[in-house]
Amino acid sequence: MNKVILLNKRPVGKPALSDFKFTLDAIPVPLNGEILLKTIYVSVDPYLRGRMNDSKSYIPSFEIGKPLQSGMIAEVIDSTHSDFKKGDFVSGILEWKEYQISNGKGLKKVDQNISSLSSYLGILGMTGLTAYLGLIEIGAPKSGETIVVSGAAGAVGSIVGQIGKILGCNVVGITGTDEKAQLLKSKFNFDYAVNYKTTKDLNKAIHDACPKGVDIYFDNVGGEISDAVLANINKYARLPLCGTISHYNDTKIPLGPRIQPILLTKSAMMKGFIVGDFSAKFPETINQLAHWLRDGKLTYTETIVYGFENIPQAFLDLFEGKNQGKMIVKI
Amino acid sequence: MNKVILLNKRPVGKPALSDFKFTLDAIPVPLNGEILLKTIYVSVDPYLRGRMNDSKSYIPSFEIGKPLQSGMIAEVIDSTHSDFKKGDFVSGILEWKEYQISNGKGLKKVDQNISSLSSYLGILGMTGLTAYLGLIEIGAPKSGETIVVSGAAGAVGSIVGQIGKILGCNVVGITGTDEKAQLLKSKFNFDYAVNYKTTKDLNKAIHDACPKGVDIYFDNVGGEISDAVLANINKYARLPLCGTISHYNDTKIPLGPRIQPILLTKSAMMKGFIVGDFSAKFPETINQLAHWLRDGKLTYTETIVYGFENIPQAFLDLFEGKNQGKMIVKI
Repeated sequence: MNKVILLNKRPVGKPALSDFKFTLDAIPVPLNGEILLKTIYVSVDPYLRGRMNDSKSYIPSFEIGKPLQSGMIAEVIDSTHSDFKKGDFVSGILEWKEYQISNGKGLKKVDQNISSLSSYLGILGMTGLTAYLGLIEIGAPKSGETIVVSGAAGAVGSIVGQIGKILGCNVVGITGTDEKAQLLKSKFNFDYAVNYKTTKDLNKAIHDACPKGVDIYFDNVGGEISDAVLANINKYARLPLCGTISHYNDTKIPLGPRIQPILLTKSAMMKGFIVGDFSAKFPETINQLAHWLRDGKLTYTETIVYGFENIPQAFLDLFEGKNQGKMIVKI
Repeated sequence: MNKVILLNKRPVGKPALSDFKFTLDAIPVPLNGEILLKTIYVSVDPYLRGRMNDSKSYIPSFEIGKPLQSGMIAEVIDSTHSDFKKGDFVSGILEWKEYQISNGKGLKKVDQNISSLSSYLGILGMTGLTAYLGLIEIGAPKSGETIVVSGAAGAVGSIVGQIGKILGCNVVGITGTDEKAQLLKSKFNFDYAVNYKTTKDLNKAIHDACPKGVDIYFDNVGGEISDAVLANINKYARLPLCGTISHYNDTKIPLGPRIQPILLTKSAMMKGFIVGDFSAKFPETINQLAHWLRDGKLTYTETIVYGFENIPQAFLDLFEGKNQGKMIVKI
């Protein structure tokens, strides 16, 4: 039989296991150019929370009673498609099913001789593209500048910091445990890490960590952490806005200090983005990331959870910061 | 004798006449390359409020007991400088004095045969440069897009709207009286004007005025007006942030709905600026504005107040929206 995870109901605020529903289907048979895929790895990402709402966003909402979707790696186990053969591995946005049919559209073959299969969901996938393109295209870092990254030990944040270092910047990460703060420095080459949960005066901690001020703030979280960083930005600062995980479970529009007076005084620029805004640059970016990875200039970490049944819990754990780097479920 | 206006004390919140002090000086004598200037026109501008605070901003604070400064037009009445002769008119950032000495640095000669002297403080001065460069360099308007301008009947706003129309955009202005709303349409070519003071649901009013959504929001005011516009922005919207007059007199950091979730969902860009950020483009911009002015494609309005004694009150009136277009004091 074929296990499937459906959206059971739309969460209000923080999602719960009861928002998901497990069901069983038959394993489908590929016909007329279709392929049969067996799921190997499932990516769970904070942005999926937005798709659980019934509201207009940059990508369509999940439908109640239908399977959820995310980035996945799958193995071709049967094929009637001329471009795919049994034994191929592919990445793509697929449904949360053990087995599924595809017509091949949107799928990309991946080669585990070049890099691990899971890395195509992370550093060589959406995660790496998001980190690189947000930092380069919006942040426009120059050697010697200071970059602050929030959610720094997360999948995107840990790559942003490393790219910043490759480009000759000073990089400060904000994270939520001492263990992650240590990892940022020891593994990911950050110059400085701030644990926002144990720091009494975050504004001052960032000030101390950035004696020359903040030129680029790569924001994955929003909320009070971002307020503290904004208080320390330099003239002409650039603020790529990649995520607002602190607000994804809010049921009301959150209130906070207005930021327009700061952006005005500093001639600063804040820009939201999703990685698809830069799709024309995907091929060259993947090449660059693969090159740095091969040369040992980039590394990554994954939190791997095992078992199809654990996909919803792995997703929920993102909002508790239980992941280090990319959160992936291995089936 | 020579009348002078000094900063008497730093305002807390809304400025008052008691924050200014009148004094009398001798009329100075120009020596060794200096010129003696007689003040003709004094520009009063919202941004001067920031210079009255003792805080770091993009330009230095005024000092207590020292003369205030702003953009001014003056006549050369005596000269020992080879570049300036008696009878020349100049524009520059000068002190609030009837007569003053200058070494000529930062002064620009202006020609009343080309345009009225006061226009060099407005449409052919900082005001026009601010409107044009903020709209073009940050807003990057394309024909057919929708531009919303707050503070639309102000000096900058009324020029932004006209440039938007020249470029083929739909232009909606937000202002605070029915008289100004009428003027936006009849004189400044706006497609639509919203009186925020008499509109019960500003969010809906902007939605109705912008059926295709807001592509560019040129913000002069901040606060709740901007909240309502932000609720109506399109994907990839650009938001030049020129002023936050609604907050200039705040004594605490104002609270409001956080805007990061909107900027993120819309891949939108907000950028603060001051006109000096684009100083390399001043000459070509002034040429363009003068060209449009000569061709009758641009017009402007001024609120002229008479008498040196009335400079402080004219400045205070800006925060009550008593001006239409550029507020200028004629001495």
